[in-house]
Amino acid sequence: MTTNSTIMDSNSFNMADIDKLPPKLKAMVKRRKILGGSYRLFYKEPLDFEEGHGTKLYTPDGTEYLDAYNNIPSLGHSRREIQEAVSKQLNKINTHTRYLNQNILNYAEDLLATFPKELNRVMFMLSGSEANDLAVRVAKAATGGEGIIVTAEAYHGNTALVTGLSPAIGSDVPMDISMRMIPTPDTYRLGTDDIGNWMAAQVEKQIADMQRHGIKFAGIMLDSIFSSDGIFPGKKGLLKPVIDMVHKHGGVYIADEVQPGFGRTGETFWGFQRHGIVPDLVTMGKPMANGIACSALVAKSDLLKEFSKNTPYFNTFAGSPVAMAAAQATLDTMKKDNTQKNSLDRGKELASKLRDLAKKYPVLGDVRGVGLYIGVDIVKPGTKEADYNYAVRLIETMRENHVLLSLCGPHGNVLKIRPPLVFSKEDVIRFVDMLEKSLDEMENKKE
Amino acid sequence: MTTNSTIMDSNSFNMADIDKLPPKLKAMVKRRKILGGSYRLFYKEPLDFEEGHGTKLYTPDGTEYLDAYNNIPSLGHSRREIQEAVSKQLNKINTHTRYLNQNILNYAEDLLATFPKELNRVMFMLSGSEANDLAVRVAKAATGGEGIIVTAEAYHGNTALVTGLSPAIGSDVPMDISMRMIPTPDTYRLGTDDIGNWMAAQVEKQIADMQRHGIKFAGIMLDSIFSSDGIFPGKKGLLKPVIDMVHKHGGVYIADEVQPGFGRTGETFWGFQRHGIVPDLVTMGKPMANGIACSALVAKSDLLKEFSKNTPYFNTFAGSPVAMAAAQATLDTMKKDNTQKNSLDRGKELASKLRDLAKKYPVLGDVRGVGLYIGVDIVKPGTKEADYNYAVRLIETMRENHVLLSLCGPHGNVLKIRPPLVFSKEDVIRFVDMLEKSLDEMENKKE
Repeated sequence: MTTNSTIMDSNSFNMADIDKLPPKLKAMVKRRKILGGSYRLFYKEPLDFEEGHGTKLYTPDGTEYLDAYNNIPSLGHSRREIQEAVSKQLNKINTHTRYLNQNILNYAEDLLATFPKELNRVMFMLSGSEANDLAVRVAKAATGGEGIIVTAEAYHGNTALVTGLSPAIGSDVPMDISMRMIPTPDTYRLGTDDIGNWMAAQVEKQIADMQRHGIKFAGIMLDSIFSSDGIFPGKKGLLKPVIDMVHKHGGVYIADEVQPGFGRTGETFWGFQRHGIVPDLVTMGKPMANGIACSALVAKSDLLKEFSKNTPYFNTFAGSPVAMAAAQATLDTMKKDNTQKNSLDRGKELASKLRDLAKKYPVLGDVRGVGLYIGVDIVKPGTKEADYNYAVRLIETMRENHVLLSLCGPHGNVLKIRPPLVFSKEDVIRFVDMLEKSLDEMENKKE
Repeated sequence: MTTNSTIMDSNSFNMADIDKLPPKLKAMVKRRKILGGSYRLFYKEPLDFEEGHGTKLYTPDGTEYLDAYNNIPSLGHSRREIQEAVSKQLNKINTHTRYLNQNILNYAEDLLATFPKELNRVMFMLSGSEANDLAVRVAKAATGGEGIIVTAEAYHGNTALVTGLSPAIGSDVPMDISMRMIPTPDTYRLGTDDIGNWMAAQVEKQIADMQRHGIKFAGIMLDSIFSSDGIFPGKKGLLKPVIDMVHKHGGVYIADEVQPGFGRTGETFWGFQRHGIVPDLVTMGKPMANGIACSALVAKSDLLKEFSKNTPYFNTFAGSPVAMAAAQATLDTMKKDNTQKNSLDRGKELASKLRDLAKKYPVLGDVRGVGLYIGVDIVKPGTKEADYNYAVRLIETMRENHVLLSLCGPHGNVLKIRPPLVFSKEDVIRFVDMLEKSLDEMENKKE
C-alpha cells in the first residue's frame, strides 16, 4: 500500500488538503510554506501545541492530549529540574570547550560511569546525526575501511554521510555507494525471536559482497531495538554472534543508542547491554538533555586514536556549560526518579494489556517491545500481511481520541508507542482504553 | 614556522606541558583526558572561566578578562533577555517541527525580513556545520553537479561532508576528491583590495580543472570576509564578478554567513550585502541565539525544489520552541540595541587606533577589517613575511594582560579580533592599551 519512498511520510499532512483545514490551522499551515518542501507535519489535521506538562500536551483551546509518542522529553514535558538548571547556568556563563569548565568534566565522568569500563572516552555533539556522522568517520579511520552495514529500514540521521546510511529516508534518495544492507530482523514474520545467528550470516554475506566490489569493510551501525525497522527487540543476547562476526572481519561495531538509550528499554540503561555485548563506539542523543540540543559519541580509547591523531574536532555549541548543565540535570533526575524502572514496569503492564486486546482485535497482529518502546504490527486479520491503511486510520482515530502516536517499519504499519519515561499507571490505562475505543469506532464505521 | 596541519592548533595548549601547570589547572586538564585527543584548549596555560557577563569573563578567583574573541555571545555573555526567553519557554512547551507552533513561524518571518526578497525560504538546524552540510546537498541536487569550490584556508564545519571542504582543518585530513580550492584572497600581499576579477579568474580556472576531471561543477561556498583565510573583507562589490562567474557556469553561490552574519560587519546585516550580491543559498549560525544551539539555511525557493521533492528533512532539536524563542529574543535585542551600528562605530574606532599603533610597532604589518571583525597581520618588520612565533607570543602576553584573542590565516599569524558586538568605547580603549602594553613588554624582554 505504501512504498519505501513514503515511509517517512506515512503519518504526514498532505499539503493538497490545506483547504479542508479549519481557518486557524489553515492560516498556520499556510505560513509554514516559507520553511520549504522538506518539512513534514503529523496528521491529516495537524496539531498546534501551546503547552506541555508531564505526559500531556495542550492545544491553545486547552484540549489535553496524552503523549504516547515523544521520547525526547523522557522526564516529561517542561520538567522543572531542567528548566532550573538551564536558567541558572544561562545567568552564569555559557562558553565552549576551548576554555576549561567544570560542567563538561563532571558530566563526562557521570555519563561514562553508566558504561562498561572499556568505553572510556566521550565527545559531545548536538544531534544524533552529528554523533553518527562522527562515529562513522572514527570507524573508517580506525579500520582504514569504507564499507558500513546497516539494516534495510535503518534511520541514522540527516547529514550527507548518515543520510546515505539511512534507507528509511525513502527509495528516491541514493544510498552511499559503499554501504550494504541486511534485511529487517522481522522476528514476527521470521517466526522466532532467536535470530542472532541468522543476522550474523546476513552480515557475513554483505561483507563478502563488499570484498567482491573491492570495498574494505569498516563496520556495522545498529540500533539494538531496530526502531525504524519496526521495533524488534528480539531475544536477549542475539547481538552477540553479530558483534563477533563484525570483529572476525576486522570491523567496528557502532551501537546507535539514540532511540534505546537512557533507560528506554527498561531492562538495562543502554540498549546494547540487553545483549551482553560491549560495542566499540556508542552514539546517543534525543532524551540526553530532555529537549536541549545535546548528543555524544562514547568510544573505547584505542578506537579514537587514529582519528584524533590528525583531526581536531570543534563543535561550537556542544559540551557548552548550558548543554552540560541540562544533561547533568537530566541524568541526575533519571537516577533520582529511577525512570528506567518505571519504563520496565509500565512497559510490562502496557504490553500485557495490549496482548489481551490483541486476542479480541485480530488487526493487532503482534505486540512486541521492551520497556516503554512497544510496537504493534497492524495486519489483515488471520494473516501477517501488513495493513498500512488501517494503521494510518487507527492513529488518526487515536488522535481524535486525544492520544499521540506514530508509525514505523518497512510497511509503515507498526504502531510506534514510545511515551515519556514518566508515563504513569493511569496513562497506561488511558492509552489502552482509548485504543480499544478507537478500534471499536473503526469497526462500527465499517458496518 | 607553522605548517598547514597545525593552523587549527596554533593557539593550543600542548598536553606534553601538563606538568608545568599550577595544581588546580593541572587537575582539570588531566580530567579532560576522557574527552579524547581531538579536543583543544586555548593557551599554554588554559583558562577556566566560571562566570561571564557582557564583554567580560571571570576565572574562579574573580580575575576579569576582556573578551575580544568570542562571537557567539554577540549580545554579551549571560544576556538577560535570552535567559528570560529560554527560561519562560522551557516552562511552557518544547516540542519539534512535526507539530505546529507559533515560535518557528514568527521567527522565520522576522529572519527572512532581513534578507533580499528572492531569499524566501528558511530551514533550521543546530550548527553551522549542519547548515553547510545541507546547503551543499541542496546545491548538488539543484545542479546535478558534484564539485564545490572553496578558498585555500576555508573552514566550513565538522561533518564528514563539510570537513572535506575545510582545508583549514589541516593537511593530514584528506579533502573531498571533487572539491577544488582557489588561493586565499590575501589583499595585503596581493597589494590591492580590488581583487574581484582576480578571484573570478581563479574560480574559472578551477571550474576548468573540474571539467578536465569529469566533475560537474555544483557551486562555490564563500565566507564574505574570509575569516579563517586571515580576515580579508576587501573592497565592497568584489564578489560581484565571482557570483557572475559561478552563475555563468551553472553553479550555485552559497554564502557562509556563520562568521560575518547578524551585523558583525557593521556596514550591512549580512556580509554578502556589502557586495551588492544575492546568493542562492545562505547559511548562518554562531550568534543566532546568543549561545543556544541554532542555525539555518536560507534559500531561493527554486533552489530548494529539487532537493525537497524527494528528501524529507527532520532535525530533532532544530526549530524547537525553545531554540526559536532564544533566536527571536536575540534578533529582537539586536534590533533594539542596534548592535550592527555599534559594530560599525566601535570597529572603526578600533581599526583606527590599531593603525596608529601600527605606525609605532612595525610587527603590526597590516590592519584590516570591517565592523568588529579585525585582523592584524603580524610580520617580520620591514617585510610582509608572516611571523607566527611572534603572534603566538603576543596573544599569550595579551592573555597575561587579561585580554582574550586568537589567531587565524594560512600562516597562523593574524590576530583575530572578534569581540561580542556590545563591545563599548571603554572596551576599545582597554584593548588598545593592553595591546600597546603587551608589545612593549615583548620589546623589553628581547633586550
